[in-house]
Amino acid sequence: MSRQQSQYDIGLDKTPANYVPLTPLSFIARSAAVYPDHLSAVYEGRSFTWSETYERCRRVASYLAGRGIGEGDTVAAMLPNVPAMNELHFAVSMAGAVLNALNIRLDAPSIAFQLDHGGAKIILVDPEFSSVIAEALNLMKQPRPFVIDVDDAAFSGGKRIGETEYERALSEGDPSFKPRMPDDEWDAIALSYTSGTTGNPKGVVTHHRGAYLNAVSNILAGNLGQHPVYLWTLPMFHCNGWCFPWTVAAAAGTNVCLRKVDPSKIFELIQRHGVTHMCGAPIVYNTLINAADAPKGAKAPRVVGLIAGAAPPVAVLEGAESIGIRLTHVYGLTEVYGPASVCAEQPNWLPTSARN
Amino acid sequence: MSRQQSQYDIGLDKTPANYVPLTPLSFIARSAAVYPDHLSAVYEGRSFTWSETYERCRRVASYLAGRGIGEGDTVAAMLPNVPAMNELHFAVSMAGAVLNALNIRLDAPSIAFQLDHGGAKIILVDPEFSSVIAEALNLMKQPRPFVIDVDDAAFSGGKRIGETEYERALSEGDPSFKPRMPDDEWDAIALSYTSGTTGNPKGVVTHHRGAYLNAVSNILAGNLGQHPVYLWTLPMFHCNGWCFPWTVAAAAGTNVCLRKVDPSKIFELIQRHGVTHMCGAPIVYNTLINAADAPKGAKAPRVVGLIAGAAPPVAVLEGAESIGIRLTHVYGLTEVYGPASVCAEQPNWLPTSARN
Repeated sequence: MSRQQSQYDIGLDKTPANYVPLTPLSFIARSAAVYPDHLSAVYEGRSFTWSETYERCRRVASYLAGRGIGEGDTVAAMLPNVPAMNELHFAVSMAGAVLNALNIRLDAPSIAFQLDHGGAKIILVDPEFSSVIAEALNLMKQPRPFVIDVDDAAFSGGKRIGETEYERALSEGDPSFKPRMPDDEWDAIALSYTSGTTGNPKGVVTHHRGAYLNAVSNILAGNLGQHPVYLWTLPMFHCNGWCFPWTVAAAAGTNVCLRKVDPSKIFELIQRHGVTHMCGAPIVYNTLINAADAPKGAKAPRVVGLIAGAAPPVAVLEGAESIGIRLTHVYGLTEVYGPASVCAEQPNWLPTSARN
Repeated sequence: MSRQQSQYDIGLDKTPANYVPLTPLSFIARSAAVYPDHLSAVYEGRSFTWSETYERCRRVASYLAGRGIGEGDTVAAMLPNVPAMNELHFAVSMAGAVLNALNIRLDAPSIAFQLDHGGAKIILVDPEFSSVIAEALNLMKQPRPFVIDVDDAAFSGGKRIGETEYERALSEGDPSFKPRMPDDEWDAIALSYTSGTTGNPKGVVTHHRGAYLNAVSNILAGNLGQHPVYLWTLPMFHCNGWCFPWTVAAAAGTNVCLRKVDPSKIFELIQRHGVTHMCGAPIVYNTLINAADAPKGAKAPRVVGLIAGAAPPVAVLEGAESIGIRLTHVYGLTEVYGPASVCAEQPNWLPTSARN
């Protein structure tokens, strides 16, 4: 490449040594500093502020670091959309490690393959999935990870299989732990496995820079504004919830956590917390549209929903609008952090009076 | 730095060779592709769509390239907030060059210093400032730049001093010119001079990455959403209008151009175009607040205004609200692209009923 010498060519060849890497870890630090008392997450009887969530993440990172977890290490999680899963999206990288969020619908052999392949040193497990994880650990060929149970008072059943429990580990961590920022924004932040339709799952490694940019892109493309109230209908294990754990932190919003897709529960949460945004596959919206107790007419909420997959039929768009959910179609894949294309609403699609 | 060897350390030491640089040029390309017919700029009797603005920028870039302008070259502009000034924020870097936006309030010796120091090869001049530029050119010690007049039917007075006129140059350019994207996001995009309170003005060189990130930050911090209608009360020569030419392109908004701060004109434009956002120094808002014809009560608009400088007194905040402008205080400097700190509104500052 021929670059003429000029006053602007001052020998800064590529990235300067003292640059500030783009990382989603800056989002949570800012929200905790600027909006410390704003609700970060609600789940069943529990709620947290951004100050509390930031402290919890630092405690977990401290605990992980104390167990020798650091750069290049993998921490796996087999969790539904509970607060701990959101926290791990920050805590693991605060320790310098990489989060491997496992698909909770997979069977033991598939999980065992991923744990072996990804080299997980620690795994966090929800009681609902402890038996499949126990089976997977038995199938592993590589050294087994250290197991941490993540108890949930809202789930009855399952059993502990771990060597400690999440809240206990967290309580042992240092609340003033200094998060380890990446020294390179291209450093890995997460490891996600594709569904492996043509063989074994393929590992996709994403980086801090991409996670930062896609998290911000979600705000821009989805018109999230500040303080969105985000309902967790999309699994956080699915391309890291399309980067929305980082998006909600960037927008200082509130994560409305949800263990499983249950229409009555969803309608209740939307109403109680004033949900503004949600994401999901077509099946999620179809389930809501067809629910007998779906709120309609004057009772319908006003929620913006992102829907992935093939272009949704008009019946789905209309059905969702009838229950107060305005859909935008997106499409993407694990390799690009989730949604990569969006059906951008055109200003002339609706009469002015009907626009938000 | 001790980095352990791991599966994530795959030899990608720092930035990969095939990365996509962050640059505001991606914003205008997207808005032209996704919202081709959306209004990009209005000024007096003229208006442009994003498709048209993109084509005009490519024509200007083509013209500049045809005159030998490329990487490392400086193009200066002595223009008020007219559409051409917005276009140059894209066109100059599309040719690979660096935009030096000159403070239209400076005298000839200060301008001559900047043109000499920045090595401008071309200068674009508004008729209102042609005499000061003619004087500055005479004071220069270095080779004089090629001069392009930018006519304005809305301004009577001044005279042409250039070798061609902007619209003529534009018409000679190739509308399908392929913008030259930076091969490094740390490449220079603009050169701005500080006010030089302790001597001669100091040149500040900003880069594509910073311009991209600050442009996006304006959307996030200012809650711009999509399709903001942005009134140009802040000079575009001032830290490149705090990056707002690039911000408005990123948000596919509309630039409401304005030659000078004139309260009656401003109230008329706010009402006619449905202005949603504006920026300015305290003096701008004070002028509006004290204007006899300021719309109040039911006639007041709903505009979000960013105000820079020292913390505004309560009287200014209240005065602005009484004429429909809700202020947010920001502070920054040329070296950081404009606003670097923002007085983030806290959720508990207003009763829920009063929130947007």
